[in-house]
Amino acid sequence: MVDTAARPDTASAPTPAARPAISHVNHPRASGPRVDTASLGRQLLGTWADLRLEARARAARPDLQRIEGQSMAEHRERVLGQLKILVDEGAVQRAFPVALGGKDDHGGNIASFEELVVADPSLQIKSGVQWGLFGAAVLHLGTEKHHEQFLPSIMTLETPGAFAMTETGHGSDVAAIGTTATYDPATDEFVIDTPFRGAWKDYLGNAALHGKDATVFAQLITKGVNHGVHCFYVPLRDEHGDFLPGVGGEDDGLKGGLNGIDNGRLHFSGVRIPRDNLLNRYGDVDANGDYTSPIASPGRRFFTMLGTLVQGRVSLDGASTMASAMALAIAVTYGNQRRQFNAASETDEEVLLDYGRHQRRLIPRIATTYAQIFAHDEFLVKFDGVFSGKTDTEADREHLETIAAALKPLSTWFALDTLQEAREALGGSGFLAENRLVGLRQDLDVYVTFEGDNNVLLQLVGKRLLTDYAKRFKSEGPAKIIAGQIGSNLVNGSGLKRLGQNAADLGSSTRAASSFDAAAIRSLLADRVDTMVEGIAGRLNKVRRESKAVQSAEFSRNQNELIAAGRAYAELLQFDAFTRGLANVTDAGTKQIVGRLHRLFGLGLIESHLAWYAVNGRLSTRRGRAVTAEVDRLIAGLRPHAQDLVDAFGYGPEHLRAANASGNEAARQDEARAYYAALRSSGDAPLDEKVLVKQRKAAERAAAKAAGK
Amino acid sequence: MVDTAARPDTASAPTPAARPAISHVNHPRASGPRVDTASLGRQLLGTWADLRLEARARAARPDLQRIEGQSMAEHRERVLGQLKILVDEGAVQRAFPVALGGKDDHGGNIASFEELVVADPSLQIKSGVQWGLFGAAVLHLGTEKHHEQFLPSIMTLETPGAFAMTETGHGSDVAAIGTTATYDPATDEFVIDTPFRGAWKDYLGNAALHGKDATVFAQLITKGVNHGVHCFYVPLRDEHGDFLPGVGGEDDGLKGGLNGIDNGRLHFSGVRIPRDNLLNRYGDVDANGDYTSPIASPGRRFFTMLGTLVQGRVSLDGASTMASAMALAIAVTYGNQRRQFNAASETDEEVLLDYGRHQRRLIPRIATTYAQIFAHDEFLVKFDGVFSGKTDTEADREHLETIAAALKPLSTWFALDTLQEAREALGGSGFLAENRLVGLRQDLDVYVTFEGDNNVLLQLVGKRLLTDYAKRFKSEGPAKIIAGQIGSNLVNGSGLKRLGQNAADLGSSTRAASSFDAAAIRSLLADRVDTMVEGIAGRLNKVRRESKAVQSAEFSRNQNELIAAGRAYAELLQFDAFTRGLANVTDAGTKQIVGRLHRLFGLGLIESHLAWYAVNGRLSTRRGRAVTAEVDRLIAGLRPHAQDLVDAFGYGPEHLRAANASGNEAARQDEARAYYAALRSSGDAPLDEKVLVKQRKAAERAAAKAAGK
Repeated sequence: MVDTAARPDTASAPTPAARPAISHVNHPRASGPRVDTASLGRQLLGTWADLRLEARARAARPDLQRIEGQSMAEHRERVLGQLKILVDEGAVQRAFPVALGGKDDHGGNIASFEELVVADPSLQIKSGVQWGLFGAAVLHLGTEKHHEQFLPSIMTLETPGAFAMTETGHGSDVAAIGTTATYDPATDEFVIDTPFRGAWKDYLGNAALHGKDATVFAQLITKGVNHGVHCFYVPLRDEHGDFLPGVGGEDDGLKGGLNGIDNGRLHFSGVRIPRDNLLNRYGDVDANGDYTSPIASPGRRFFTMLGTLVQGRVSLDGASTMASAMALAIAVTYGNQRRQFNAASETDEEVLLDYGRHQRRLIPRIATTYAQIFAHDEFLVKFDGVFSGKTDTEADREHLETIAAALKPLSTWFALDTLQEAREALGGSGFLAENRLVGLRQDLDVYVTFEGDNNVLLQLVGKRLLTDYAKRFKSEGPAKIIAGQIGSNLVNGSGLKRLGQNAADLGSSTRAASSFDAAAIRSLLADRVDTMVEGIAGRLNKVRRESKAVQSAEFSRNQNELIAAGRAYAELLQFDAFTRGLANVTDAGTKQIVGRLHRLFGLGLIESHLAWYAVNGRLSTRRGRAVTAEVDRLIAGLRPHAQDLVDAFGYGPEHLRAANASGNEAARQDEARAYYAALRSSGDAPLDEKVLVKQRKAAERAAAKAAGK
Repeated sequence: MVDTAARPDTASAPTPAARPAISHVNHPRASGPRVDTASLGRQLLGTWADLRLEARARAARPDLQRIEGQSMAEHRERVLGQLKILVDEGAVQRAFPVALGGKDDHGGNIASFEELVVADPSLQIKSGVQWGLFGAAVLHLGTEKHHEQFLPSIMTLETPGAFAMTETGHGSDVAAIGTTATYDPATDEFVIDTPFRGAWKDYLGNAALHGKDATVFAQLITKGVNHGVHCFYVPLRDEHGDFLPGVGGEDDGLKGGLNGIDNGRLHFSGVRIPRDNLLNRYGDVDANGDYTSPIASPGRRFFTMLGTLVQGRVSLDGASTMASAMALAIAVTYGNQRRQFNAASETDEEVLLDYGRHQRRLIPRIATTYAQIFAHDEFLVKFDGVFSGKTDTEADREHLETIAAALKPLSTWFALDTLQEAREALGGSGFLAENRLVGLRQDLDVYVTFEGDNNVLLQLVGKRLLTDYAKRFKSEGPAKIIAGQIGSNLVNGSGLKRLGQNAADLGSSTRAASSFDAAAIRSLLADRVDTMVEGIAGRLNKVRRESKAVQSAEFSRNQNELIAAGRAYAELLQFDAFTRGLANVTDAGTKQIVGRLHRLFGLGLIESHLAWYAVNGRLSTRRGRAVTAEVDRLIAGLRPHAQDLVDAFGYGPEHLRAANASGNEAARQDEARAYYAALRSSGDAPLDEKVLVKQRKAAERAAAKAAGK
């Protein structure tokens, strides 16, 4: 997935400082291999480790962090002020041109930017709006004149701006937005209009309050022809913060989270801007109104323009993965300290993480987080290769977009799932803001629908898979595709492959399980992707000569599975990245433990799709049952290392900022246990009525016996 | 599940007023059966339909509703004021004794109370704290002297109070709380102490600000014997709102939701209360310090006391189900209006609910909501039977507790899942507070861990199933149990049953699917419960003579599956309730459609556990694949009725209060479509560059041809 030539040299980077240890009441370890948290932690920081450490140190500063309970108005002003701090400290210029004071460092910029989520997701996203969307649109869609004219004041935040793409009526289908930019040769201007309510720009950060200007996406119309969506630089407000003539808007108001950002709506009525304000890298209009573009195909031109904005998806994948890591660090730390019920002992209660159910809730999610961390670093390296120009072919760009569409949905959904599970694993205390999880979840909620709705993105992946499939079989013609598909179904569905497997599985479940090595897991994951795509392609192919309506209906019937296929492909990407990450682990003990985690991730995927493997004849009943047994065995083997594995994420109390992951719970448990121990040894402990009842019953039985019964 | 004799007569109740219709852009209906939303809506209101309608009308009043964006302090005061309104209107007295102005109406009280969730979950839960927990503890654990002394001012809110059971250190394991109440015969007082930080009472509504008194659970110690947890009436604050001597506490601060409630912590240092303040229904101490109880067994006494407080779980099941219904009403309404992409037509975009994936996201959840509504009404009838004394045997109480432990986890988790899916189905607009979903989800988050952590409750169900299993096989002895279990495994696991089924399934998948009738579905669901319980019992039984530590370790290994078995049982309860609910549908067309919904619910459960059915040999590969095909078919058949099915929930715009379910989206779509239609017919519409490119290419081909190629 990654061209290693594009990796910056990190060999000289120092190892991160050892984290201050948090006391754990109970942290059992097997006598076998141990995790070397320092070296593993360094590896998890990835290609831009030093930039991450620097950014993470910044995110630990209270002046850049969220204050829980602030009103929306206070929070918005605080975050705006924090953006100014970032400017003053030169923390946000890396992606911009060297000529303008930047570093032309795209990968490093994103690595650094993602870490802001640790301080406050509102700070991350408002920075993303200003420099990753508004500024990036000028950078990537504009040309040198725009860079010189607009970027300096964007970089310094002198000009806060909105990225006005989404409309109330069109989010996923950007090509169909209603806003128009019509060229008027009489004045050499574009006229921007939102012709109906659904064409209002909506959900835009910086639009409600702070935005002075905006990059506005609109249908470019000149000489009676609509050349499709282009981006225009449009002033919004005057020096007093009032809307300029023709511009209007409203506040989106309170949101489910991210209330440090002033999202709002904008509309335009005959707003005139100079022709030069067309960001003209991929399409230009001359004074006569004649349109030219370096990309002849309107469709390819549109996707090229959108493709330059992929960094949003990159950074959400990274930030979501960090949020999951923090959630697990909090929940595992608490689960290793918190005690409840005393099933195994008369006096000591068990720590939560010694319960099988609690292990099942947290440990597989650690495995997924590792997979995501490795996959994200490769993704970021790929992104850097494309945006630095080092590895920037059309195939690279297409591959980057597919990776983005695949990974972002999985990691953003996973963050919500993991933050919720962690919050529940803290019981009632997880609901308190002081334990951080609810706030993070509220903020990250929107990550699953912005920068591409997750379902729509996975559908895009599914469609790419179909296209690839069609290309592969192009020379053989549709008849052979169908034959191939049916043949495969015959082999797998009717039991032939399955029967073969049953024959090989005559031994015990345990022996069958041992064959689930990484290669077998990969083969199962890949086979599922191929088979699903093949099946969908075959069904769609059957109606390829029918009307558009019939084809659309058949597509709709297959849409759920197509999205599942997209997800299956994304899971395979993650698994492969984890495989490569594991290969790079050097410490032998660490490698053994991370190897278990790797298999747990892969087998966990198989388990989550076990129904598919079973009903499609890929796993016999015996091997199917062995999957769960092996997952259980791996979890049990990883349990003693759970704390090390989350400690390796590298977050200290200054990042987690969760009361119950600070050692508070351990202190409370110690105090309570010391109290009861002292009470027992004092001889003043009250007797338990239950014990008295038992003694009385025993005495009664003895008396009855003595009475000669 | 329900003794119909305990059902109040509702035959004379009027039908609910027809809801004002919301305009839907697209609401296709098959020409076949139709849902009679009025009669179905009436049925869904259940046994206490009129009380629900009355309460729902109250919940539609703005003065009882939440104002989004209020600060925590403002919200707390607002909700306190709303509680006073409820008192003034006599809306909260039903459960209390007739002698004190109540109605002794337990079921009606809960039905009415649950509807408060529609106005503001904080209002629901703060009312629940005051009257359902604090007041109910006095009512159910106290005796007449307490009722006379304390209830009147509790009922009027003159004395707001806290229910001080949970401690920082003990939530799920209430029996192990650290707070003590030691009898001092010298002064005829109990002395209340929290001996260490973990014993502080925590997460208590009304504790941070408003609570004057509290019902405090503590270990009752007299004459050197600890008689276990009892409840005591303890004054907290003086007339100025200051803590009384020995009482202290702190504010829990901001939470993930429910910020209209002042949750806080309390601690006690040598706080003396009169002996009479022991709520002495199930245990008493005389002036000499001698303890007596009508229940000899300390264990049974404890569970009896806790059992009187089951109504919290009842009401959470109901309120969560309503929140799910509201979420689906919002998302389906929007999904029937919102358009995006135009796969099927040149000019018209498709409504979201015509996409297969969107149907998969919403329609099965409608089915689950119906199951929950029917199950909840039976649950409430059962509760009413026990608490009214009509059907109040020990077996009834035990059954009620099992139902509560089974249904509450499923419906509270389902509400979070459904609110989230609905929020995502609204795209970015779902993240705005104005569309209601994020606020509801934030508030309901804690429902999954309070009034019994969901995992702990399902484990309780699992343990009851094990106990029942052990009872059934008692006479046969453990050896036979194991033999039976192994025998079952042999038949089902090694392929015998499966092979038989394969033989019966030689026909097409379609024919196999037709055998999934309700009886077949029920049999599959019940078989899964039995088989899981049998398997776990067998494994636990093998270590029954081992040490406590070994037994505990084996339990931990089986805990995840035991909880899954508890869940499977709960799903069976819901399916059976839906079966009975369906039987009561009278209108023929409605019955046909609700029948599909019933099968979708059941088959959806089978599909979600398909891996289990496959690897345990219950479904052949062919029949396994047929499950998903049939689920898809049912969803497609229900799609035209989706709006009717959610309209039958009976929520109008005044309840949903979601901008995007108000008809706004339909109006925007109409406006946009009218704009484009007018533009097309005007002849002024710009040409699409894509069309021009096509035309040019065609012209070039023609020219090349004409040139004689």
